[in-house]
Amino acid sequence: MGGRNARKAKRAAALPENMKPVHPGEQGGRFKPLDEKDLPRIHETALKALETIGLANAIPSCIEACTSIGCTISPEGRLLIPPSVVNECLEKAGRDITLYGSSPEHDIHLSGEKVYFGTAGAAVHMLNPISREYRESTAADLFDIARVCDTLEHIHFFQRSIVCRDLEDIREMDITTCYASIAGTKKHVGTSFSFADNVNETLRMLHLIAGSEEAWRKRPFVSMSCCHVVPPMKFAEDASACLEAAVRGGMPVLLLSAGQAGATSPATLACCVVQAVAEVLAGLVYVNAVKEGAPAMFGTWPFVSDLRTGAMSGGSGEQAILMAACGQMAQYYNLPSGIAAGMTDSKVPDAQSGYEKGYTVSLAAHSGANLIYESAGMHASLLGCCLESYVIDNDMLGAINRTVRGVEVNDETLSIEPIRDVCLEGPGHYLGHEQTLNRMQKDYLYPTIGDRENINNWIDQGSTDAVQRAHLKVQEILNNHYPENWDEETDLKIREQFPVRLEKHRMRPLEIS
Amino acid sequence: MGGRNARKAKRAAALPENMKPVHPGEQGGRFKPLDEKDLPRIHETALKALETIGLANAIPSCIEACTSIGCTISPEGRLLIPPSVVNECLEKAGRDITLYGSSPEHDIHLSGEKVYFGTAGAAVHMLNPISREYRESTAADLFDIARVCDTLEHIHFFQRSIVCRDLEDIREMDITTCYASIAGTKKHVGTSFSFADNVNETLRMLHLIAGSEEAWRKRPFVSMSCCHVVPPMKFAEDASACLEAAVRGGMPVLLLSAGQAGATSPATLACCVVQAVAEVLAGLVYVNAVKEGAPAMFGTWPFVSDLRTGAMSGGSGEQAILMAACGQMAQYYNLPSGIAAGMTDSKVPDAQSGYEKGYTVSLAAHSGANLIYESAGMHASLLGCCLESYVIDNDMLGAINRTVRGVEVNDETLSIEPIRDVCLEGPGHYLGHEQTLNRMQKDYLYPTIGDRENINNWIDQGSTDAVQRAHLKVQEILNNHYPENWDEETDLKIREQFPVRLEKHRMRPLEIS
Repeated sequence: MGGRNARKAKRAAALPENMKPVHPGEQGGRFKPLDEKDLPRIHETALKALETIGLANAIPSCIEACTSIGCTISPEGRLLIPPSVVNECLEKAGRDITLYGSSPEHDIHLSGEKVYFGTAGAAVHMLNPISREYRESTAADLFDIARVCDTLEHIHFFQRSIVCRDLEDIREMDITTCYASIAGTKKHVGTSFSFADNVNETLRMLHLIAGSEEAWRKRPFVSMSCCHVVPPMKFAEDASACLEAAVRGGMPVLLLSAGQAGATSPATLACCVVQAVAEVLAGLVYVNAVKEGAPAMFGTWPFVSDLRTGAMSGGSGEQAILMAACGQMAQYYNLPSGIAAGMTDSKVPDAQSGYEKGYTVSLAAHSGANLIYESAGMHASLLGCCLESYVIDNDMLGAINRTVRGVEVNDETLSIEPIRDVCLEGPGHYLGHEQTLNRMQKDYLYPTIGDRENINNWIDQGSTDAVQRAHLKVQEILNNHYPENWDEETDLKIREQFPVRLEKHRMRPLEIS
Repeated sequence: MGGRNARKAKRAAALPENMKPVHPGEQGGRFKPLDEKDLPRIHETALKALETIGLANAIPSCIEACTSIGCTISPEGRLLIPPSVVNECLEKAGRDITLYGSSPEHDIHLSGEKVYFGTAGAAVHMLNPISREYRESTAADLFDIARVCDTLEHIHFFQRSIVCRDLEDIREMDITTCYASIAGTKKHVGTSFSFADNVNETLRMLHLIAGSEEAWRKRPFVSMSCCHVVPPMKFAEDASACLEAAVRGGMPVLLLSAGQAGATSPATLACCVVQAVAEVLAGLVYVNAVKEGAPAMFGTWPFVSDLRTGAMSGGSGEQAILMAACGQMAQYYNLPSGIAAGMTDSKVPDAQSGYEKGYTVSLAAHSGANLIYESAGMHASLLGCCLESYVIDNDMLGAINRTVRGVEVNDETLSIEPIRDVCLEGPGHYLGHEQTLNRMQKDYLYPTIGDRENINNWIDQGSTDAVQRAHLKVQEILNNHYPENWDEETDLKIREQFPVRLEKHRMRPLEIS
């Protein structure tokens, strides 16, 4: 039995990169919810909406930049964007962009149909899944979430997932949100800002951390999630100013249109896609009017409402198919893109949470969008966040990534020689066959906390569920994983110059005296 | 508040069929895990395996039937099937077949890429998800499972999901299994047999229930799941005899090849597909040699092993993509087909169970296979079954079916007039727009026990999870839903003539004195 356990342990040990069964950036795009012929129709309809309805509330600098490349202002004061301007911007837009990690092994390359999984959200609550209690989220929670995600292999980038409710001052909140995220993980970080001044101040902090502005601009390891529109078809004024600051400061921008079908977006799924595409194209025109080719991600995120109550339903089937259709549209434009999936309506990590995440994330991943945001940790239609769920969802993301990697068909994998060996010469099974042993690690992925025991072993080990096992794993990570992403001296400088409101003692292990 | 609740209740009430947002038999096939060019390669490789390796253990009647249409016997005694014979059988095979319900509204039509969800399994345990206890499954459990499934809208057919462990006599078990299933539901029933004599005896029972043999043959409402092979590449002898009895008796047959990758099937996913396709094609040749055009379903079910332990892992990513690839192969042949998904490794209906069911079922459903077996109720890689999980999974299946229905793109759904109305003329939102009200019920599906409450309501209602809510629903169904699928007199006749071992008192409500 000792020998068997030793073999099991060896097989379960960490693999070198080239032996791993899945990698960040597997090739998606095999799920096509829309007919090919519908893609240009949706594009043409979005163009018509931009040309004839346009967007309200463009700020003066937006009007100046956009009219200088051919947009006009309607009698009602709306920014009208002619098809020629959109098509020119589509040609010039930044493609094949890299989102840098603060450590290069976490760089992710957005091109073609490469798929990456990450977090996101603006939850206002943390869930304790053992007691089922919700409480307000804090800056310390954000740091903890970041370091949990830093350890999870199948979460490829980290966008901030909660609002620091303990910080009332918006400047302190914006800056601390970025600080807590980049202090907790070396993966690429996405964050968000309320005002352009806070973008500029944060950029100075990032220059300090990178070593210089030049070093930052060479490898910008933070991007900005920007709701540049308030659907339907209005620019968001403060977000517009943030967008300009980010573009000028070399920070990649996720252009987010987050309408809600039947509320701030049309009730038909097709027209929902049209409005989202139109709004994001407007953002793309805006970005390229400010700086041609600046890195921007196509972020069509139409949400679904439960039309009985008007409340968001992020876990519905309508949400899954709507988001996948948007992923396919992004591929039609061959733009770097990010969509959202994993936004369960359930308040706890239960079976409902699992299946809603399972089908929304898998269809999103196969749609060919590059970035799957919100794919771990979230509950209550994005209002809640749960540390244990990141650990649970990490196993799910690995398995879904395995489905994205797909089935390799070539002379070697197709060869029927193993069948012939086993049937005509061999023992009648493949267990000890050379090919089986070769394929075991490279082709097959093993979960971290996912249960594959037989029933008796599962009972012997305490009849646990995923939450109980994840809880132990979270405790282990929180007690042990304290990344030090910059030195003490840099941290002192940061804290002197910027209003960082994450207490230092929260950032290192408790000293046991 | 009364008015609002009344409106909510009205909106939540059952809809007439033509208003329902999803129907059985939505059109799948939009997920293509394999490249188009790989499909004929896999076919050619399977043909080569059938021609040069062939299958061992063909019974005399199989040899007689198959050699009469051109197969040969190798020096080792294996049945070799030349490509010409396979291709002829592919031409003649039954297509566009109907699986009848015992009530016509449950008929399902297998053609093209229509998708239906159903149960299956041969679990030996029932799980109580509240106490987390496993116990042996019984005939009374099977009847209860059938009547729970009878009430669940998104479960379209019922294949028996447990083994009646309380019955030791195989004849009693085979007959009672069929009886308990058809007594519990009016949906199409799939069952399984150990010996051909039991098939024939059950057929006589079905004639009695249908009214006559002719009536049975007109609307055969029971099909047989038949593991006609023992992978790799051997016929199963008793199952072969069952297959012949079913084909002659007018009972549709699911031709099941259930190898386990790395154990009884090759370790490369591509060659796993090849072996499964070859084995099912052998079954198809066999069926058509016995009776040309007899209804048979292409049942490529390669399972995945956890290669660390050799145990089956039905919830893995490898399983999801392998099964979807098989669904696409079935579509390549345009054969009526059934694959399996939903086979979680988890022992309880937890988050892991949810996500494993979510991604396996959604990718299977979109692959274009007609029947998705095992899609509800199962645990522990098919060894366990749970009543509450059927109720939970029913909501999941509805939502996944909504994603299969997809996004309708046409002049009406694409019209930007609602955007123009709302932006230029209207209130700035779509909530009261005529189109929103029209679409609310036809386009949006609402879960039965799935939680979409806001956090405070959820707390007020007891901070429940899906299992707790499903448990209440199961109790309600078990206490109230007693289908009477035939009259008392027929039941007496059945029990006089056949060894039905489901106690009569288990089939009606407890009398409270």
